[in-house]
Amino acid sequence: MHGKVYLVGAGPGDPELLTLRALYLLQHADAVVYDRLVSRAIMSCINPEATLYDVGKVAACKPSMQDDINDILLSLSRTHQRVIRLKGGDPFIFGRGGEEQLYLQQHGVRAEVVPGITAATGCAASLGIPLTHRGLASSVRFITGHLRDNQGLELNWASLSDPTCTLVFYMAMANCRHIAQALIQHGRSPHTPIALAQDATLKSQRWGLGTLQTLPQLAQTFSPPALLIIGQVVQLHPDYPQPTSNTQDALTPESSWALM
Amino acid sequence: MHGKVYLVGAGPGDPELLTLRALYLLQHADAVVYDRLVSRAIMSCINPEATLYDVGKVAACKPSMQDDINDILLSLSRTHQRVIRLKGGDPFIFGRGGEEQLYLQQHGVRAEVVPGITAATGCAASLGIPLTHRGLASSVRFITGHLRDNQGLELNWASLSDPTCTLVFYMAMANCRHIAQALIQHGRSPHTPIALAQDATLKSQRWGLGTLQTLPQLAQTFSPPALLIIGQVVQLHPDYPQPTSNTQDALTPESSWALM
Repeated sequence: MHGKVYLVGAGPGDPELLTLRALYLLQHADAVVYDRLVSRAIMSCINPEATLYDVGKVAACKPSMQDDINDILLSLSRTHQRVIRLKGGDPFIFGRGGEEQLYLQQHGVRAEVVPGITAATGCAASLGIPLTHRGLASSVRFITGHLRDNQGLELNWASLSDPTCTLVFYMAMANCRHIAQALIQHGRSPHTPIALAQDATLKSQRWGLGTLQTLPQLAQTFSPPALLIIGQVVQLHPDYPQPTSNTQDALTPESSWALM
Repeated sequence: MHGKVYLVGAGPGDPELLTLRALYLLQHADAVVYDRLVSRAIMSCINPEATLYDVGKVAACKPSMQDDINDILLSLSRTHQRVIRLKGGDPFIFGRGGEEQLYLQQHGVRAEVVPGITAATGCAASLGIPLTHRGLASSVRFITGHLRDNQGLELNWASLSDPTCTLVFYMAMANCRHIAQALIQHGRSPHTPIALAQDATLKSQRWGLGTLQTLPQLAQTFSPPALLIIGQVVQLHPDYPQPTSNTQDALTPESSWALM
């Protein structure tokens, strides 16, 4: 009899943003496979009897990391009843949860996915920046700003130029300059508001505000992993400098897109 | 002294997907303003002493609903210490949280936003469909499929044609036919896999699989509110019919985009 593997989202870091389901599973886990994106406070919720596997180091050192993690999960499912694969954020948004689920399915192991608060929504709530807002953004897109093996960031930039779509780049630090340049080249205003944040929702949280034009300079003062929010919604942050004396008007749906 | 207003995401419906923070606030609320997207099981978590305000009916009847809700929140903050504005999903993704936060700020009332599991990630986990997946989708975009006052759905369709971006339409039912037609017209393959789901994460959950071409027909058997996932990731659902006998190959990153 195989055990069951739970692919569990730990959320953005603040343990209060764990789901009830995730907390229950951590407290009743037989084995937990975790990575560096999970905060210490959350690690302290784990059943003290559970076997722990840190795959953060594996991830940093080896290109074949995901194959190794898949093998660890399969192996643990043969010796433990309740195996938790604990991930920062949500397993199905840049979490490789799909690859693990597929591998386990192919080997006949039961898997269940428990969603977590993804970094974008955790960060947005913490900073007070809505990701959609009537008249400013009718959609939001999550993009990875870092590709494996340090490949160049080749995106369909034209599809990112729609000013009614908020963009959130995960793991953005390596490519902030490139992202800013490419978006401006493809039609986004250089004055488009941006916010950069690291450790969002944690006490160590740091954030900065700017525009696409000032992003490369701002990025020099941040460390990875960081989240980058791009779009008119960022001007709703109370500290964002307002372009006119009539702030009230500037934020109504009828106002122009190009505020700054 | 004004009270404080908490804009709280209740998640997709399953009470186990509440965050610890949301549960604590519901259990210690003095007043709760909620709408029809919050499930009964979650309502049962609320402090029985709290005053309850159902604004779901307001929303259905009046075009000025958001102004009314803003006024109710402001008024309650003058008579209650801990006022919860409880919303389905996440307050900052199609939740109007930004408008409420802005209104409260402008009236000097403290507000805090508590993120929730948004419908897209709740539904994706429940169905087993990753929203991003190496080789199939490097980004995901959330879009509202329903505009207020039944305005036509005017989107920048060209920006939605990138096949490497998973699309998730919230409140999609009213415009499924239009969405399918417009995406195909703007270059998405008619064979692009899709999933439709209603009541995702609840016991009453229903879902169906198809392609952009078969979406209008499939949609006739669903009721709003429903969520629509569009993109190659949908083929990772175990029940999705596989186009070739060699399923393994079809799901590797190196394979072609146009599988069906």
